Amino acid sequence: MTECIFCKIIEKNIPAEIVYDDEDVIAFLDINPVHPGHALVMPKQHIEKFVDVPPDQCKNLAGVIQKIMKSLTGELGYDGVNLIQNNGTAAGQIVPHLHFHVIPRKTGDGFAHWHGRGYADGESALWAAKMRSAIESSGAA
Amino acid sequence: MTECIFCKIIEKNIPAEIVYDDEDVIAFLDINPVHPGHALVMPKQHIEKFVDVPPDQCKNLAGVIQKIMKSLTGELGYDGVNLIQNNGTAAGQIVPHLHFHVIPRKTGDGFAHWHGRGYADGESALWAAKMRSAIESSGAA
Repeated sequence: MTECIFCKIIEKNIPAEIVYDDEDVIAFLDINPVHPGHALVMPKQHIEKFVDVPPDQCKNLAGVIQKIMKSLTGELGYDGVNLIQNNGTAAGQIVPHLHFHVIPRKTGDGFAHWHGRGYADGESALWAAKMRSAIESSGAA
Repeated sequence: MTECIFCKIIEKNIPAEIVYDDEDVIAFLDINPVHPGHALVMPKQHIEKFVDVPPDQCKNLAGVIQKIMKSLTGELGYDGVNLIQNNGTAAGQIVPHLHFHVIPRKTGDGFAHWHGRGYADGESALWAAKMRSAIESSGAA
């Protein structure tokens, strides 16, 4: 039996407030929302991180994320919405089953983004060169 | 002439540290990174929000996001990565051209997520019902 809490929700072995459900994708409410309606959208297949999702499946996931976003900023009256997806415990991923947070926002609600640290002179060019090289190597692998 | 700063970067009319560039998708470094290597990935087509992207195009975008993520947690040695996409000024979207932040993370770097506010008894069931109804109406529209 799976130990993944999201797989248990998908198998309907533990309850959740499901807002969308099809063959491949499920969405349910986060139990500790930033604002009410904060939803989690995920593939039913147990994969852990964004790098594990076959790009072909992104079409279905994106379609469901769009439905949720439209409901939040349409009928439900929110002003904006964030899409957030965390990979690895260092990035705040608690449940190791790929999921997208769809977070409704209100103007002036006070949730601030992380502050940037800037680049020193020449540092960004150096990083860009390192990344282009790393992207090329991984593409060839 | 376009007034969109990202379109100007795409047209190579203003400089940026480009790390990936193909027919449909471009990625360059955020000038004010959370950590060095923090990249912005976007479609070259000027669309504003996630709800505007044709789901078919998500395959290409996802593929590029995966390349960037692999370079950050692979060769570049980061421990995790966040994917963040903001829709509307209420959600912190500054440039109205759809873009995904790919943010590298280090264990214990201190960047905390927003705190949730929880649900009162019965409140989440109510919200889930409202959302299912809103999703159905928008799907029919």
